[in-house]
Amino acid sequence: MRATDIRNGETAAAVGALATPALLLDKDRLHRNLDRLSSRMAARGVVLRPHMKTAKSIDVAQCAYPSGPGPITVSTLAEAEYFAQHGFRDMTYAVGLAPHTAERAMRLRKAGVDLKVLLDSPEQAAMLGAAGRTAGVTPSAFIEIDCDGHRGGLTAEDSKLIAVAAAVADAGADLVGILTHAGESYGLCAPETLVAAAENERAVAVAAAERLRAAGHECPVISVGSTPTAHFAEDLTGVTEMRAGVYMFFDLVMHGVGVCTTDDIAVSVLATVIGTKPERGSILVDAGWMALSRDRGTAAQRVDQGYGLVCDVAGKIYPDLIVSQASQEHGILAIRPGSAHALPNLPIGAKVRILPNHACATASQHELYNVVSAGSDVIEARWPRMRGW
Amino acid sequence: MRATDIRNGETAAAVGALATPALLLDKDRLHRNLDRLSSRMAARGVVLRPHMKTAKSIDVAQCAYPSGPGPITVSTLAEAEYFAQHGFRDMTYAVGLAPHTAERAMRLRKAGVDLKVLLDSPEQAAMLGAAGRTAGVTPSAFIEIDCDGHRGGLTAEDSKLIAVAAAVADAGADLVGILTHAGESYGLCAPETLVAAAENERAVAVAAAERLRAAGHECPVISVGSTPTAHFAEDLTGVTEMRAGVYMFFDLVMHGVGVCTTDDIAVSVLATVIGTKPERGSILVDAGWMALSRDRGTAAQRVDQGYGLVCDVAGKIYPDLIVSQASQEHGILAIRPGSAHALPNLPIGAKVRILPNHACATASQHELYNVVSAGSDVIEARWPRMRGW
Repeated sequence: MRATDIRNGETAAAVGALATPALLLDKDRLHRNLDRLSSRMAARGVVLRPHMKTAKSIDVAQCAYPSGPGPITVSTLAEAEYFAQHGFRDMTYAVGLAPHTAERAMRLRKAGVDLKVLLDSPEQAAMLGAAGRTAGVTPSAFIEIDCDGHRGGLTAEDSKLIAVAAAVADAGADLVGILTHAGESYGLCAPETLVAAAENERAVAVAAAERLRAAGHECPVISVGSTPTAHFAEDLTGVTEMRAGVYMFFDLVMHGVGVCTTDDIAVSVLATVIGTKPERGSILVDAGWMALSRDRGTAAQRVDQGYGLVCDVAGKIYPDLIVSQASQEHGILAIRPGSAHALPNLPIGAKVRILPNHACATASQHELYNVVSAGSDVIEARWPRMRGW
Repeated sequence: MRATDIRNGETAAAVGALATPALLLDKDRLHRNLDRLSSRMAARGVVLRPHMKTAKSIDVAQCAYPSGPGPITVSTLAEAEYFAQHGFRDMTYAVGLAPHTAERAMRLRKAGVDLKVLLDSPEQAAMLGAAGRTAGVTPSAFIEIDCDGHRGGLTAEDSKLIAVAAAVADAGADLVGILTHAGESYGLCAPETLVAAAENERAVAVAAAERLRAAGHECPVISVGSTPTAHFAEDLTGVTEMRAGVYMFFDLVMHGVGVCTTDDIAVSVLATVIGTKPERGSILVDAGWMALSRDRGTAAQRVDQGYGLVCDVAGKIYPDLIVSQASQEHGILAIRPGSAHALPNLPIGAKVRILPNHACATASQHELYNVVSAGSDVIEARWPRMRGW
């Protein structure tokens, strides 16, 4: 019932009238964030391939591509199928391949979706070849490169790199290029280290591609990306494509990294005060980890934001008021330790907005976005999110 | 498509054939866990009011009540509405009241659901009275008592206690009793401290009720509960009702507390190996925090289980193999630091089962339970979960 778009005649609701907890999306901030990175990449002649794992919403994708579908990245095949249903055709599935995903991905390819997959072993290349033959399509694959020891992929110098490329060719698949992700950049905060992480990501990717090219593999695409390195990269020579996801919404972790201000954070959780304990310096709200997620990504940063930073209903931050603890449906608001600020006087029934640590995790706890404009309390639309695998 | 029950003629799938990540529910363990606490409470003459916030499934509720609906606890009004649609009538909404929830709760009451609500202030009592008058029903409320400083509620000695009861009466509502939750028990692990926490929960609840009774308020129900204290309580004199939720499934946090063995944990996440890095001692699987949740509840316990403990596809634990790191759709398996065990040889495509830190959080990341029996790899049913607020 709540998952409807209210643009078509239905009376618009006010933010203050929403049942809580509820996810709000400030579309002015969203558009500003989208424009910031797309302008940056356009100026460098690099294709931006937004990662839809954060938003998981066709409406958000249409904000990124107002003139029609463009290249996207997905984190699950359910996302690929969802965006394909909405007309997207150029996708990269940026999670390593398994037998069942190879088959499902090739069915999408058979249906006309240019879905590129990711692998880093000859075994996966063989699985992909078999799935391609079954579906009657020519697969298209990236080799995953590990630029910072973060997760998957081969290093640029790995002795297996050329063998994997050969296995892709032997499997009858096209090697579209190499793909890497500077995931370790999320742990940084000094601009010079972020610039260095971006340069490392670029240099490793280019080195891997040059090794492949020297071995006779064409390797046309060099795909890199993470929200921090996308914004801090000074030189993208050789890079053809940038991937990023959380840049659309930003969050407190990205604020701690130094990629955005709190005024750029486009998503927040609306909550209602359900208890007050001024004698203990705490206020109880109806947003716990079910609404905020269990993400504590700022715990390792210079400023620990608890489970989120608290704003008034219009979005103005209460200085040093954070969600200090969370249980399933309860959040406890308290002033950050060491702060001289006083607990605001918020009676039962008062509404607050909570900026999340990690937009990907918080948004995934909700079925839809309640879309608002800056400075307005009207819910202009409700945009559903997809989920699952 | 996956949210169907496969009991009615559809061919049963095998665990190994499931698309991953997927949530598995071992119904033999579920029934054993349900029986354990219901027998314990029946022997003590205490009503068990299971908290449905963990399972959020009518099929699981029907396992708890095979002969028809009984008393339940809910954490959201969406849960209350869902279980009401499935015939449940006796419910306690165990989250503090706000104006919008008071109205919605009274609409349910008007529809014939004996929904009891929770409050700890005269303001909430007044809101409840207004909502009751609007709906044309007599509200029924618990006063929340704080037994251990965990979250909400008044202490048993709070000078406001009698005033809140008077406000409930003035609002034209029935005071059904007092309710408390020993939430701090989740942080314990020594049996004697758990017994003491249960006794404290009981004693505080009884003391609060006695104060109310001495002031002329009948206060028939004394409702206590948390999974640890429900299992460790030695004396429940005066208590009329026990609430618990995670006991149905158990999890690694409850194992760390000492309430269950790993063989009692009824839910697990099936995952597929998508990369191997034996030279680094790690294995990559397709279950990240989206499938496991960001819950790190064991981090504060004696044994840190990372994001989960890894078993083979039949459920046998790989000694000391944990999910050491998680990103959105990637989990990294590694042997626990300091262990002498070797990394198992798991090729790409191999399946594993991951026991979760926190069943409430992990299950909430999934749309349905794939139901299995111990020792069988047949998916016997698919039970949908409800979500939202």
